[in-house]
Amino acid sequence: MVAELNTADPAFDEAFAGLLAARAEFDTSVDPVVAEILADVRARGDQAVIDYTQRFDRVHLTTHTLRLDDETIDDAAGRVDPETLAALNTASERITRFHEHQRPTDIAFTDPTGVRLGQRHTPVDAVGLYVPGGTAAYPSSVLMNAIPAKVAGVERLTMVVPTPDGVINPLVMAAARLAGVDEIFRIGGAQAVGALAYGTGTIAPVDKIVGPGNAYVASAKKQVFGTVGIDMIAGPSEILVVADRDNDPAWIAADLLSQAEHDEAAQAILITDDAAFARAVAEAVEGHLRTLPRSAIAAESWRRHGALIVVEDLDEQAPPLVDAIAPEHLELAVADPDALAARVRHAGAIFLGRHTPEAVGDYVGGPNHVLPTSRGARFSSGLGVLDFMKRTTLLGCDANALATIGPSAVRLAQAEGLGAHGLSVAIRLNMPRERPADAG
Amino acid sequence: MVAELNTADPAFDEAFAGLLAARAEFDTSVDPVVAEILADVRARGDQAVIDYTQRFDRVHLTTHTLRLDDETIDDAAGRVDPETLAALNTASERITRFHEHQRPTDIAFTDPTGVRLGQRHTPVDAVGLYVPGGTAAYPSSVLMNAIPAKVAGVERLTMVVPTPDGVINPLVMAAARLAGVDEIFRIGGAQAVGALAYGTGTIAPVDKIVGPGNAYVASAKKQVFGTVGIDMIAGPSEILVVADRDNDPAWIAADLLSQAEHDEAAQAILITDDAAFARAVAEAVEGHLRTLPRSAIAAESWRRHGALIVVEDLDEQAPPLVDAIAPEHLELAVADPDALAARVRHAGAIFLGRHTPEAVGDYVGGPNHVLPTSRGARFSSGLGVLDFMKRTTLLGCDANALATIGPSAVRLAQAEGLGAHGLSVAIRLNMPRERPADAG
Repeated sequence: MVAELNTADPAFDEAFAGLLAARAEFDTSVDPVVAEILADVRARGDQAVIDYTQRFDRVHLTTHTLRLDDETIDDAAGRVDPETLAALNTASERITRFHEHQRPTDIAFTDPTGVRLGQRHTPVDAVGLYVPGGTAAYPSSVLMNAIPAKVAGVERLTMVVPTPDGVINPLVMAAARLAGVDEIFRIGGAQAVGALAYGTGTIAPVDKIVGPGNAYVASAKKQVFGTVGIDMIAGPSEILVVADRDNDPAWIAADLLSQAEHDEAAQAILITDDAAFARAVAEAVEGHLRTLPRSAIAAESWRRHGALIVVEDLDEQAPPLVDAIAPEHLELAVADPDALAARVRHAGAIFLGRHTPEAVGDYVGGPNHVLPTSRGARFSSGLGVLDFMKRTTLLGCDANALATIGPSAVRLAQAEGLGAHGLSVAIRLNMPRERPADAG
Repeated sequence: MVAELNTADPAFDEAFAGLLAARAEFDTSVDPVVAEILADVRARGDQAVIDYTQRFDRVHLTTHTLRLDDETIDDAAGRVDPETLAALNTASERITRFHEHQRPTDIAFTDPTGVRLGQRHTPVDAVGLYVPGGTAAYPSSVLMNAIPAKVAGVERLTMVVPTPDGVINPLVMAAARLAGVDEIFRIGGAQAVGALAYGTGTIAPVDKIVGPGNAYVASAKKQVFGTVGIDMIAGPSEILVVADRDNDPAWIAADLLSQAEHDEAAQAILITDDAAFARAVAEAVEGHLRTLPRSAIAAESWRRHGALIVVEDLDEQAPPLVDAIAPEHLELAVADPDALAARVRHAGAIFLGRHTPEAVGDYVGGPNHVLPTSRGARFSSGLGVLDFMKRTTLLGCDANALATIGPSAVRLAQAEGLGAHGLSVAIRLNMPRERPADAG
C-alpha cells in the first residue's frame, strides 16, 4: 500500500523527513568503464565510435554512414501519420512562442562617473543534443531540448541518437526536422558523448551537450564537463499534487500516475486537507492501474515512492511542505491556485487549477518539460533559452573616469598585495608607485 | 623567453593549437581524501569539523566558538585603515549598482487560445560563501560573491573562512560586513564545504555553495553538487590584450602582469599587429618584473604560459583568435574598441579602450570578477544575480483552453506510449479512452 502521512500525527516530521531522504542517489558504478570509452574515443576518433556502435547497437557503420543523410531522415519522418504530425507541429509552435519570451535583454548605460557599463548575450556556437534510443526516445524531448537552442541562435545543433539493430525512430526524425536540428549522427552511449565533446574526423566538436540518457550517458556528461558545458543530470520524475476535496478523484489519480508511469523510481505525492478524498484518490489509482499500458511500472513507483499527505489547512500547511519537497512538477488543483502559487518558493514548474494536468505541459503547454529533480528546484531552473546563451560584461573608462574610480582600485590592490594590479591602474594616472613597504 | 607566434608563419596554426591545448587539466588526485572528509562530516557533524580544524588550522574550537561573534567581527573590521575602508565602500556601492541591473523580469501573459503562461524568479533561500584563508583571502572576492546573492534576495548568506593559527583577516571581515553576510564560521577546507552542504548541529545546511578555494575545496564542491548547487570551478586566471602600436608598451606590460602575478599557472597573451610593439611590450614586462612584489610568480607564469601573437590585420584576424581562446578577460586597447568588441563572441568580460586596465574591473568597475576560465566563455558566464535565483514556469488552462490544446497532448502521449499521460488529459475532456491497440 502507498504511504499515508498526516500532519496531526506526532510522528509526522520523522515520516516526512524519511520521504525526502529516500530519493535515489546518483549511480557512480559505471564511471570507470565510461572513462575508458571516453579515452578511447579521444584517441581513436571515428574508429572507436564505429567499434562501440557495432558492439552495443549491432549496427555496422563507416565514416560515410555515421551521419544520417537527408533522404533517410525525410523518409523516416514521412512515415509519421498526419494526425501525430499535426500534434507535433502544434507542440513545436507553442514551445517556440513561449521560449521567445525568454530572450534576455542586454544592458548598456553610462554611470554618473562617466564609466560605460554593459552586459550582452551571445549564443553558444555549437550544441550537441543527446536523444536516447529504444523506448525512451521521446519526440517531445527532442522539441524541448532543440527549440530553446534554436531560439537562442545556436548555429550548429548536432543530434546523436542510437539506432539499435538499425531501427530509426520516425517520430524522432520528424521532431528533429520541425525543431531545426542541423545534423544527425546515428550513435549513442558514452561514445556519442565523447565524440561530441572531443570531436572526431567526421564529427566536429560542440561547446555544450544537453539531453537525457541512461547511467552511462549521465556519467559521460559529468566526465566531459569542463571541456564542454552540460545541462543538469536528470533524476527520476516527480509530481506533487495539492488538491482540495472539490476535485474528481479519478482526475487527480491519473495525474499522479502520469509521472509514476515514467520509471519505477519516479515519485508521485498528493497533499490534501481531506482524508476521505485521499482515500478516494488511492482507490482511483488502483482502478486506473487495471487498464493502463505501463501499469507494472506505475504500480511499482506508486507503492515504493508514492505518498498521501493529509494536512488540516492547505493554505497554511501546504506551502512549507511544497518548499521542502521542491518538486519537479507542482499541480495546484484548488479554487484559487494563483494565491497558493504565490506562497510557494521552490518548484520547477507549476500547473494552475483543476483543468491543467501536468501532462499537457509535457507536450503542448509551451514551457519546457526539462526540469530540476531531486529537490534541485531549491537552486536550479528548468531548461530555457538562457542555457544556450552566455553573458559577457563590458566596462569602458576614459581618462577622466579612470581618474575618478582608479585610485580606489589601486588602494585595494595594495591591500591585497597585488602589485601589478595596482601598477596597471597607477601607471595610467601618473600616480606614484607603491610605497616601498608594500613593494618589498 | 616568452613564446612569439606570427600568423604569417606557416607553422602558426600548430603553434596556436599548442598554446590552447597546454592549459592545465583539473586535479583529481585529492578526490579520495576529500570523499573521506565529507563522509566524516556527514556522520559526525560539528565534532568532525572541530577535529579537522584543529588538525589543519591549529585552532581549537567548540560548538560555541565555531561561529564568529559580532564583537570579534567588528573588532577585526575596525582595524582596517580608513582609506582602504573607503575604497572597499566605493567598490561595494559600484558592484551593487551594476548588479541591480541584472535583476530579471518575470513573464506573464495569456495567449490567443486562452492559456495562461508565465515565468517567475525566486531567490535561493540559503547560500554558503567559501573564502580562502591566508594570502588568497581577497576582500574583493568577498564582495563579488556576496553582493549578487544579496541583490538576488538571498535571505541567509553564510560565510566560511579558515583562520589558520587563529589569525582573523580584518579586510575580509570588513568586506563581509559591507556585503551583508549574515553569519561567519571560522572553518575551511573540504570540512567547511561538507558542513555547508549537509549541515551540522551548529551550522544549518545551505542550498548553494559559491566561492574560490584550493584543490580540496574544488573537489569537495564537485562532490556535494546535486545535494546543493555550486558555482563553476575556477581555473588559473587569464588575460588576453588586443593592442595596436598606439599604446604605451609599459601600460600593456603592466596589464599582462596583472593576471600573471596571480598564479604560476595563469596565462597572459598579447595580440598586436606590430612586431616592434610586441618586442617593446616584452621588454617592458622585464622592466616591471624587476620591481614588482610578486615578480617570481609573475615571471614564471609569463615564461611558461605567456605569448605574443603578431597578426597582419587586427580587425580581420583578432576576432577569430579571440573566440578560439575564449578568454576570461579581454582588453581591447585600440582606437575603436566597440567595433572590435562587436565582432567577438566568446569572452568572460571585455575592457574597452586604452584607459580601462583589467584590474579596475577586479575591484571597482561594477561587473563581477568571477568569470569563466579555460575556454569556458564558449558556454558559460560570469557570476551574477541569476546565479542566486531560479526560474519557475507557470501554466494555467481553463476547460476551454484545455479543450483546444489537450487533444494534441493526448495524441503525442499515445505516440510515446505513455497511457497515464494521455488519460490525465482525456479524462478531463470526456474523450474516449485510448484505442485498444495502444492500451495493450
